[in-house]
Amino acid sequence: MTPNQEEQRLTLSSIESLARDVLLASGISLAQADAIARNVTAAEADACRSHGVYRLLGYVRAVAGGKADGRAVPTVTPLSPAIIRVDAGRGFAPLANEMARPSLIAAAQAVGVAVLAINNCYHNSAMWVDLEPLAEAGLVSIGLTAGQRSVAPHGGSMPVFGTNPFAFGWPRPDGAPFVFDFATSAVARGEIELHQRGGKSIPLGWALDAEGRPTTDPALGLAGAMLPFGGHKGTALALMIELLAGPMIGDLTSQESFVEDEGRGSPPLGGELIIAFDPARFLGDETADHMARAETLFSSISRQDGVRLPGDRRLAARVQSAREGVLVPSRLLDELEAIRA
Amino acid sequence: MTPNQEEQRLTLSSIESLARDVLLASGISLAQADAIARNVTAAEADACRSHGVYRLLGYVRAVAGGKADGRAVPTVTPLSPAIIRVDAGRGFAPLANEMARPSLIAAAQAVGVAVLAINNCYHNSAMWVDLEPLAEAGLVSIGLTAGQRSVAPHGGSMPVFGTNPFAFGWPRPDGAPFVFDFATSAVARGEIELHQRGGKSIPLGWALDAEGRPTTDPALGLAGAMLPFGGHKGTALALMIELLAGPMIGDLTSQESFVEDEGRGSPPLGGELIIAFDPARFLGDETADHMARAETLFSSISRQDGVRLPGDRRLAARVQSAREGVLVPSRLLDELEAIRA
Repeated sequence: MTPNQEEQRLTLSSIESLARDVLLASGISLAQADAIARNVTAAEADACRSHGVYRLLGYVRAVAGGKADGRAVPTVTPLSPAIIRVDAGRGFAPLANEMARPSLIAAAQAVGVAVLAINNCYHNSAMWVDLEPLAEAGLVSIGLTAGQRSVAPHGGSMPVFGTNPFAFGWPRPDGAPFVFDFATSAVARGEIELHQRGGKSIPLGWALDAEGRPTTDPALGLAGAMLPFGGHKGTALALMIELLAGPMIGDLTSQESFVEDEGRGSPPLGGELIIAFDPARFLGDETADHMARAETLFSSISRQDGVRLPGDRRLAARVQSAREGVLVPSRLLDELEAIRA
Repeated sequence: MTPNQEEQRLTLSSIESLARDVLLASGISLAQADAIARNVTAAEADACRSHGVYRLLGYVRAVAGGKADGRAVPTVTPLSPAIIRVDAGRGFAPLANEMARPSLIAAAQAVGVAVLAINNCYHNSAMWVDLEPLAEAGLVSIGLTAGQRSVAPHGGSMPVFGTNPFAFGWPRPDGAPFVFDFATSAVARGEIELHQRGGKSIPLGWALDAEGRPTTDPALGLAGAMLPFGGHKGTALALMIELLAGPMIGDLTSQESFVEDEGRGSPPLGGELIIAFDPARFLGDETADHMARAETLFSSISRQDGVRLPGDRRLAARVQSAREGVLVPSRLLDELEAIRA
């Protein structure tokens, strides 16, 4: 890609500074802003634009709306040797994750499996960014969070679920961990929003309009209902994520989060669940041997023509971004500079 | 449904006796046979034919092939306050589950989350049958197991994964728990086998032939590669299940299980992972209130026209089966009677 007049090239450190400054100018605390800036920069580095600096507008809106607390200090409480709870205090997910992570890692190492239950938290960030450090600590992890109702169950037309992402991390002995993170909607909501901003139509199968009819208009789709991936199976997973990251840990469903928002268009308030496993507690002295068998599995997939391991594109982009920086749409940059000013 | 000449109606207790007798006549121990018979009968009761008495042929084949141990006695070992390991001794999953279940429930209740790692186990049974008792004990659970390589990654043509089912259970205050259990292949392998037995073609999107071309011929699809559900997202889940139920717990991948079988066509040998959560350890005094919010979520889905909660069809069939018994194809019944004789 070469820059055109509608895009500007920024280094990753400029991205991180810009993000921090925009957040600080919006009244968000340094601790929250730093954690968010790291998350947004990691997404830009991996060419995941829908979770990059574009998301800063959502953080600013959340605080301006008076619902989110940009200065919240998360409190971490162990509920058992295997459960860590963090009350995010209506702040944002990146800081809640960072503050709870050492306790989660210690608990998983101690008993082999541990759960982090994040409550009372605004979610506007990429979850894979929070699973990578767990993999770097040698842990396998699953991350789940709900959203605001925007996705209808397969066969229906009324939105019930959020885009309810499912994320997974696996440590690899050489190089970056294997991490995937996908919306259980057909696509991430941010994809539809970016199509809307770009004046592009969306493919059929992504969304229904408010009358339940298939649509290619991103605005009508955002006002109607998004569709789940994978039909009734994707629907089942979306429902599971609602239950695990919602009622099971005492937090909101995507419907309740929608009501709570009162139409402000803020990021969703709710829960996040991370399950961390320490393979060494299962495998003991044989850990390295069994992790090597996983590498055989990875190569049997990636060596096939036409197949890419989830995350491979992100990791390739990461190398390029570190060297060349990333392109940001000029219009978005103007909006962000206006907030920073 | 009314019986025709090609089907016979059996009561559930006749199904269970038949199953036990067929297994005992094949040299399987009473303990293994009883557990399998309960599993197969539960599947028939829920009109899940692909996991019903049809599966008995697979158990018999597994033992006749000299690889599975039909008389194995599973050994249960706690590895930590949150990990229970059961070595199935090359026996079958139902007895391994039944013997480990009390320890799993106790561990989950003690620390809030616990993992059951079943190793060295032949898998030929419906996993949801083993999650229901956990839900009846008030626990939320996830069940995962791999298989023998038969499913290609999205975009590829070489089989790598088994049909790698994903199962989930959730306790409900009134009536049967919410449980789903789906293959991460487009359909369960048993579905394709039943099409083959019935002389029916399969839809495009279920399988590729041995040259990687889409096929509607069940025999060619079984000899080639099945396809994952949900494209690259379903592929990611299938891979996650391989890793969690395989290398993470020191057990076989679906490729390794295929090699181990040496072409006998036995059920897959490998691992099974069950994660059990006790909501009461997260929610304390507020458990009932939050579980009631889950009921609101369920009803917002099931009240939509055209939408069915996963498992609803099974539960409706269960009521009918208890009253009327179930229909079994006469040809299958003849095969089973010949083994019992």
